Amino acid sequence: MKVKLASNYGFCFGVKRAIKIAEDYENSATMGPLIHNQDEINRLKNDFNVGLYNNLSDVKDHDTVIIRTHGIPKNDLKHLRTLNAKIINATCPFVTTPQQIVKKMSSEGYSILIFGDSDHPEVKGVQSYAENQDDVHIVLEPTDLENIIFKNNKIATVAQTTKKKEKYLEIVNYLILKNKEVRVFNTICDATFENQDAARELSKEVDIMIVIGGKNSSNTKQLHSICLENCSNSYLIENETELENSWFLNKKLCGVTAGASTPDWIIQQVVDKIESFS
Amino acid sequence: MKVKLASNYGFCFGVKRAIKIAEDYENSATMGPLIHNQDEINRLKNDFNVGLYNNLSDVKDHDTVIIRTHGIPKNDLKHLRTLNAKIINATCPFVTTPQQIVKKMSSEGYSILIFGDSDHPEVKGVQSYAENQDDVHIVLEPTDLENIIFKNNKIATVAQTTKKKEKYLEIVNYLILKNKEVRVFNTICDATFENQDAARELSKEVDIMIVIGGKNSSNTKQLHSICLENCSNSYLIENETELENSWFLNKKLCGVTAGASTPDWIIQQVVDKIESFS
Repeated sequence: MKVKLASNYGFCFGVKRAIKIAEDYENSATMGPLIHNQDEINRLKNDFNVGLYNNLSDVKDHDTVIIRTHGIPKNDLKHLRTLNAKIINATCPFVTTPQQIVKKMSSEGYSILIFGDSDHPEVKGVQSYAENQDDVHIVLEPTDLENIIFKNNKIATVAQTTKKKEKYLEIVNYLILKNKEVRVFNTICDATFENQDAARELSKEVDIMIVIGGKNSSNTKQLHSICLENCSNSYLIENETELENSWFLNKKLCGVTAGASTPDWIIQQVVDKIESFS
Repeated sequence: MKVKLASNYGFCFGVKRAIKIAEDYENSATMGPLIHNQDEINRLKNDFNVGLYNNLSDVKDHDTVIIRTHGIPKNDLKHLRTLNAKIINATCPFVTTPQQIVKKMSSEGYSILIFGDSDHPEVKGVQSYAENQDDVHIVLEPTDLENIIFKNNKIATVAQTTKKKEKYLEIVNYLILKNKEVRVFNTICDATFENQDAARELSKEVDIMIVIGGKNSSNTKQLHSICLENCSNSYLIENETELENSWFLNKKLCGVTAGASTPDWIIQQVVDKIESFS
């Protein structure tokens, strides 16, 4: 089976940076999964003895603890600092930015609106930086705004780095029509969209698309949904073991893309296996 | 001829306020026309001896000078203050707001974008408050933004009070996609749109519409253009002397609306004359 890779795919700047940091700190542990990719987390464990803590109570004296790419809530970081542990911050700088914006805007008396998934660790982290927790609101849709009562008519907005700009504009427009001032910070990261644009183009010219990435990764799921729009034979897999020969029957060209947390070595294994199919 | 008035029309808050101020200062003079209505200016002259200065050099010692509703450029105000004259500020508070926003945002290092007519006195006044005159830009259309080079990727925007919100959103959306921060101040005044909505509704149910207002008034011209969309027999007049009997031949119901600078006594004269037509 012939394979064509998307013109942009895989690791973004923040993920490359976090992995490099983890490799530099052997025998450390990350606070929460470093990135949304179990295979890469396993590799860091096997090759660099980088462990995984899921709770603050896991941290022991003299541990080296790495803050993951998506960041952690402010109070968790504060608590970590009270422990006798070395803290290495691998939060993506593009995530640190909205955290700091929310902190500053909230302290200046702005109501805060975050466009994102309230369950996502990045959003939880960003939200935690608001000084007034009663006046920070998270929405996914413009209609979610209807039930929100802001304390001010001065609103500051940030977006989860992986969200779609078009939807952010819809949300912002709703706010502008109802408030005196809306301070719009465009915190959406282009890397995600470069991968998406490339996936969109490629999915138009192939008869099967393989999207490689974590099944709980929001940017990988978005890639998959974009590919499905153009190519009904689009599959989301985490690694090459999930590939099924039957998918490729009577197909001519297979497109491959990968989420922002998918390492090159996994992509290579997937490509090798697809090429081995007749 | 039967007449129906729009549910909202005529003077806005800022104009009512300016006229009250002028009536309170007999024997004064306004710096530029107080409002966009020659008949009301004549009435103030006849009844209260309120004159009109078109140039700063017209101001004489001990004059009382009234700043008009649309405001004047900062340096003109500064110059006035050096003269031996009493200054009464009748600038609409809704116009003072964008002036002060532009001043503050410019001093904080924001590039300034004004949505409005660069020839309009309100816009000229607002623009003049930017501390950095090289980095204040005026547009009417999103496409006008293509050729602008902002000095910063932090932009603050205001709109001329009488502009359309939909177009403002288009302009703001363009900016959000290309800049880190866009600080959107919604300085558009609702009074204009209440008159417009009422004119739109009324123009759908009549067979002739009369729009009363200054022919150089931007909000009156917009009312006229909205009426024309629904009623091809829509006429813009400044007072009852312009009415022509022939317009009303074979018509059944005449709608009447008036721009934000049109006084009630002029509207009444127009209504009386239309009702006298058979």
